Amino acid sequence: MSVDSAMTEAAGATAAAAAASDRERADWLRTVADALDANAVDLVTLADEETQLGETRLFGEVTRTTSQLRLFAEVVTEGSYIEAVIDHARPEATPPLPDLRRLLRPLGPVAVFAASNFPFAFSVAGGDTASALAVGCPVVVKTHPAHPELSRRTAAIVERALQGAGAPSGVFGTVEGFDSGPALVQHRATTAVAFTGSTAGGRALFDLAVGRPDPIPFYGELGSINPVVIFPAADEARGAELADGLVASMSLGAGQFCTKPGVVFVPRDSNTETAIDVEATAPPMLTPAIRAAFDRGVDELLATPGVDLIAGGRGGPLVLAADTATVIANPLLLRTEVFGAVTLLVRYDDTSLTGALECMEASLTATVHAESADDVRDIVTKLERLAGRVLFDGWPTGVAVTWSQHHGGPWPATTSQFTSVGATAVRRFLRPIAYQSAPEELLPPALQEHNPLGIPRRVDGVLEPATAGEVRS
Amino acid sequence: MSVDSAMTEAAGATAAAAAASDRERADWLRTVADALDANAVDLVTLADEETQLGETRLFGEVTRTTSQLRLFAEVVTEGSYIEAVIDHARPEATPPLPDLRRLLRPLGPVAVFAASNFPFAFSVAGGDTASALAVGCPVVVKTHPAHPELSRRTAAIVERALQGAGAPSGVFGTVEGFDSGPALVQHRATTAVAFTGSTAGGRALFDLAVGRPDPIPFYGELGSINPVVIFPAADEARGAELADGLVASMSLGAGQFCTKPGVVFVPRDSNTETAIDVEATAPPMLTPAIRAAFDRGVDELLATPGVDLIAGGRGGPLVLAADTATVIANPLLLRTEVFGAVTLLVRYDDTSLTGALECMEASLTATVHAESADDVRDIVTKLERLAGRVLFDGWPTGVAVTWSQHHGGPWPATTSQFTSVGATAVRRFLRPIAYQSAPEELLPPALQEHNPLGIPRRVDGVLEPATAGEVRS
Repeated sequence: MSVDSAMTEAAGATAAAAAASDRERADWLRTVADALDANAVDLVTLADEETQLGETRLFGEVTRTTSQLRLFAEVVTEGSYIEAVIDHARPEATPPLPDLRRLLRPLGPVAVFAASNFPFAFSVAGGDTASALAVGCPVVVKTHPAHPELSRRTAAIVERALQGAGAPSGVFGTVEGFDSGPALVQHRATTAVAFTGSTAGGRALFDLAVGRPDPIPFYGELGSINPVVIFPAADEARGAELADGLVASMSLGAGQFCTKPGVVFVPRDSNTETAIDVEATAPPMLTPAIRAAFDRGVDELLATPGVDLIAGGRGGPLVLAADTATVIANPLLLRTEVFGAVTLLVRYDDTSLTGALECMEASLTATVHAESADDVRDIVTKLERLAGRVLFDGWPTGVAVTWSQHHGGPWPATTSQFTSVGATAVRRFLRPIAYQSAPEELLPPALQEHNPLGIPRRVDGVLEPATAGEVRS
Repeated sequence: MSVDSAMTEAAGATAAAAAASDRERADWLRTVADALDANAVDLVTLADEETQLGETRLFGEVTRTTSQLRLFAEVVTEGSYIEAVIDHARPEATPPLPDLRRLLRPLGPVAVFAASNFPFAFSVAGGDTASALAVGCPVVVKTHPAHPELSRRTAAIVERALQGAGAPSGVFGTVEGFDSGPALVQHRATTAVAFTGSTAGGRALFDLAVGRPDPIPFYGELGSINPVVIFPAADEARGAELADGLVASMSLGAGQFCTKPGVVFVPRDSNTETAIDVEATAPPMLTPAIRAAFDRGVDELLATPGVDLIAGGRGGPLVLAADTATVIANPLLLRTEVFGAVTLLVRYDDTSLTGALECMEASLTATVHAESADDVRDIVTKLERLAGRVLFDGWPTGVAVTWSQHHGGPWPATTSQFTSVGATAVRRFLRPIAYQSAPEELLPPALQEHNPLGIPRRVDGVLEPATAGEVRS
């Protein structure tokens, strides 16, 4: 379908999608989740052919994707997300205050750009699609060419499920092809863009979104280095375990994770470094272009004086190492994401860790491995400035889909405060409206005096919890 | 002070401002509010000399400004704003879920651009400054040249109050001069921009903010037409009252309000139009440039065939009128804000109102005057798309400072979902951080298990109300 046809259909569905109740939209999402689960075997077979990510990982990703759809269904029926606020009139105040009631409403059609590396969770039926549909925004997905048949199969399942659940026609569509990307961002009906991909690609689309005569929000998840700091006592207590954990995390899915640990700070002469053991298998990668970019990136790292190969081989996985003096002299080593199974150990001494961290740009995650004997507070404070998620004694490649998750960070990790993972993903596609002195019959149910939806609301400054509400279809 | 000096000082205060407790920051704001109130007579005298807005209006604006500072103090001590979310570990889940806790943290130094037309409420100590300081972001204000001495006097009072309240040195500063604007937006330490002003000026600074190597959020409040629709039964029942209300609203403060009603749809042969009575007084305006722009804008309106002067005179206030056919043929009449005391009546019949509304761009407000006999629902739905605040049977020029207020709208009214008025103004200057498996002693108080601050939190998916908490300084 052409961009203009898809977006015109989406625009045509906007009023009906916004008018659907939260329960109705939750039902759409649960129906899509059920349909994906029911087709999981077929979908995973196809996905494995196109991505070679392996069936175990892909079945897990289907589960994560359908959990995500169900979480957003829960988020909108719980109702806090709509941020209902009521201030009753205060005619006796100076100046007199009118009755004023506020909530969030859907923006309109959203353009979603699928990623290559999560063919389910960040693709056609991923977090961006789920969170936009959840709040009543039609979606047009630009599918990723790394899994074209899977994208088509998934889209067909999503469309049929939405239709079966009574969603308005045109509320979901897909487009294909490189040129459809810019056209989608610049289409007059597009009200927001959600993107997961490279910094270069994301920046180009971001520039188009903000360069429109009517700029629209661009929610991008771009590059990420994901620094890890291993403290001396942790290294001493469990260096071998840390080495194994690191190798497993950096080589998972051929290292094709936005949360892959790319730079690992280890004490000089660390047990961790000594215990690193990698068998180079040159694992298949998602596309020839991604493989070529990985090989180029590895070659550039290996060509940098002071960077040594300590385990694995050129095709990956491989572990490199350098001293802090080397990375401070070549700060691009700390800022250049090489997408794939490579990581760089940076050997620090007591004084050089801070200086190296100051050369870094922001990431999605930052990780600390420490024992109680380690003095971590100052470094944690620095890492909070560098990342949107700070992990202790784990590895960043798992991203739990929960109310509390945040998968973002300052530029260049993401282009906005809120992203596609976690309950607040829905807020990206909403805008506030305040109603002043509105007659009760013209107010949306969420703002009617007797709270028919039973949702949490702030009334005259006081947060009131959910109530039973009335039964509503 | 130079932009670089001011921003360097702000950057130096970032860690201390972020580390201050909510109660401490609330105390800063209340101290500033008290100091402004204590100096209100002097400040209003100076403001009236520089703006000629009149003492009554200016005393009211000081009260609004200090109420706003106190509201943001209340917002941060109430604590919901920090969006604390806790999901306890679920090792039994598939996959196992780690302990994950999320909250919002300050972005860093904020550049604030003062407006000409609210020398207190949208200037040095206005909503942008208050909401940024409230959440621990240092502020550098680019003062407005329309009230230079008042800006200096206000800044001195704010600085002394902050110092007296124990705020870190450098947390607040000002810069002057046209060239300091772009420099402020492009300074490496600036993490967000808040702007109130013209669409042209705002767009130029927006382009700089998003064009940085590291784009930063630009929160702009730009142009607004503020359509009003008077329905037939309301016109018949109280045309004279509506005429008086309109003239009072559009001429208030010489029409120099971002919420001035600029286009008013009236039934053909309306009582409202007949009752319009305006005495042209050519009221003083804020600056010679604003007066010149007003005169140019009025001349252009009067030169358009089909636009008639029905009351008042060229220097203002004045009321013009045209038929819907005229404005549909010249849609710029519906899209061009003329800042000052002029408004355009647009005479509609049963079928032409919808077509004219479809020519409009978004505004901060949209207003309906109706009686129960009027069928308003479809038009209200259209107005919801065109504005961030929909008013019934009032006039848009008053903006209550409350939890529920929203002062924004789709482009070109504002450049973002959240703006400087209302409790969510603070969210513009915050970003999420999630802590995974963090030791209790490294968690911020808001996320510690026993909830020492007593703030509302979402725990394992359930919103928990505020508790007594512990006494904290």
